[in-house]
Amino acid sequence: MKKVVVIGGGTGVFTVLSGLREYPYDLAAIVTMADDGGSTGVLREEFGILPPGDIRRALVALSGSDNKMVSELFNYRFDENSSLKGHSLGNLLLTALTKITGSLPEALKEAVTILNVKGEVIPVTLEKTKLHAELENGQIIEGESNIDIPKHNPNLKIKSEFLKPAVTANKDAIRAILESDFVIIGPGDLFTSLIPNLLTEGVVPTLKKTKAKIIYITNIMTKYGETNNFNASDFIKTIEQYLGKNVLDYVVMNVEQMEGRTLERYKKENVDYVDYDSKNFDSRFKSVTGKFLRRGQFLRHDQGKLAKTLAKIIGK
Amino acid sequence: MKKVVVIGGGTGVFTVLSGLREYPYDLAAIVTMADDGGSTGVLREEFGILPPGDIRRALVALSGSDNKMVSELFNYRFDENSSLKGHSLGNLLLTALTKITGSLPEALKEAVTILNVKGEVIPVTLEKTKLHAELENGQIIEGESNIDIPKHNPNLKIKSEFLKPAVTANKDAIRAILESDFVIIGPGDLFTSLIPNLLTEGVVPTLKKTKAKIIYITNIMTKYGETNNFNASDFIKTIEQYLGKNVLDYVVMNVEQMEGRTLERYKKENVDYVDYDSKNFDSRFKSVTGKFLRRGQFLRHDQGKLAKTLAKIIGK
Repeated sequence: MKKVVVIGGGTGVFTVLSGLREYPYDLAAIVTMADDGGSTGVLREEFGILPPGDIRRALVALSGSDNKMVSELFNYRFDENSSLKGHSLGNLLLTALTKITGSLPEALKEAVTILNVKGEVIPVTLEKTKLHAELENGQIIEGESNIDIPKHNPNLKIKSEFLKPAVTANKDAIRAILESDFVIIGPGDLFTSLIPNLLTEGVVPTLKKTKAKIIYITNIMTKYGETNNFNASDFIKTIEQYLGKNVLDYVVMNVEQMEGRTLERYKKENVDYVDYDSKNFDSRFKSVTGKFLRRGQFLRHDQGKLAKTLAKIIGK
Repeated sequence: MKKVVVIGGGTGVFTVLSGLREYPYDLAAIVTMADDGGSTGVLREEFGILPPGDIRRALVALSGSDNKMVSELFNYRFDENSSLKGHSLGNLLLTALTKITGSLPEALKEAVTILNVKGEVIPVTLEKTKLHAELENGQIIEGESNIDIPKHNPNLKIKSEFLKPAVTANKDAIRAILESDFVIIGPGDLFTSLIPNLLTEGVVPTLKKTKAKIIYITNIMTKYGETNNFNASDFIKTIEQYLGKNVLDYVVMNVEQMEGRTLERYKKENVDYVDYDSKNFDSRFKSVTGKFLRRGQFLRHDQGKLAKTLAKIIGK
């Protein structure tokens, strides 16, 4: 059975895992531990735990529980108007498990049993750190959530990012990358979901060392304050700033763009389609394009269409 | 298989169910819905749900999950110093399930599956109400938690209690009482865990109608502000004030009293042993006495010893 590792955070990991679980692959997810916003941020601060949000999404995506209710429950978010302030039940459950067992890896083992998870969910690091971004004017932004929902001038470009303190990769993450046949990076917010994984010490050298083929999936939409006006080539260049050139074997890119009310809504928020600009590619990789748009309220990847394309690359 | 229904609330129901689950009985618990304190009270107010606390304890007692972690998780209580203010994870889970499914009975069905519960947990009513107590000076105390942890003069006796609005018993509670071979009331806080069940319309007539034998278990200790200086006969008389005379078939009473540091601690809080005063009994029932004290920090029933005595009454 082909071993596939997905690296990322946010809804992107959920989309890829949910799609690929329909195929006979041995799946693992390596998720960022830099998240510090929302429910996760509050739990991180109050309970001194590693951020549970991205782990929760990956667990639910890989949950083999016959009881659909268990995954619905895991993702249930309490009303903003209560003292539970937008907490998701899954985050609270992971917090409680971490407190009971004494560590996130132990908590994960229990959660994997409760949710009957098919696959592995691996925090990229077990050490606590904070994401920092340096803008083109030299300003330093501290904290993932401050980069994600910018309080600074969102027209300033992010020049580079770093983790402080520096942290070392979880040995399970290193092992998973080395043992895998394919590593999929993204889709996901470049600066807040993907790059924090690559900044973790040990990850990039292992991606260079592994025999696995590396696939990068660019985003469908730009993100205001992070990737304003980015084309596909800008996503690739930015990833390669951390990964190095010629490490990517495949780049999967969306070429479908629909007009309409949904797009107008996005444009009002300074978000637009990511254009496929192959003329600007200057690295060796195989370009794989597809029509990946999901029908619905959000302009996102359709998990089924994306998985079908990935499965063609990965094979049986 | 003998059908046994336990009626009550608080830790008493947990003690009886945990003990009896070692015997081959078909168990059900009917629990009070008058609780409005602590985590339960906050969730009740903020989410408009029925109180989850007593249901949670009964579910955990009957959980057949091989994974001990699931019940530990259900009872896990968040740190007082966080925004989660002493909430128990099980209460939050029941709240989320109620919100997702739309009703407490549906939420219970899901919880029963998740926890692999052996037996039935039945809210005494599905209607919302508030417990009220009238003190001997005519003062009316509103709310279970205000009776439980008295803000009024705790030396004033409780003359009577009522529910406002009046509520009707859950049909599942009625069915369980009618179908059972034995009904066990208590142990538990007389005015805040037991009587609220008896005040629910339909419960007492059904207890009179059922062919089941009725067993009442008196408490080991008095409770300041509720049952100051109560002897066993006072507990029985008070229960019979609501139940009627000669309804009880058995009364199970503790006769073991240990001196020592633990007792001194209780006495400082105006709590003392409940004396076995058979000379004052004036109702027809079979007295069953035993040494039920659990060794430990609290003067409570030992679940194993209590269950052994109950099993002798119930038979095979």
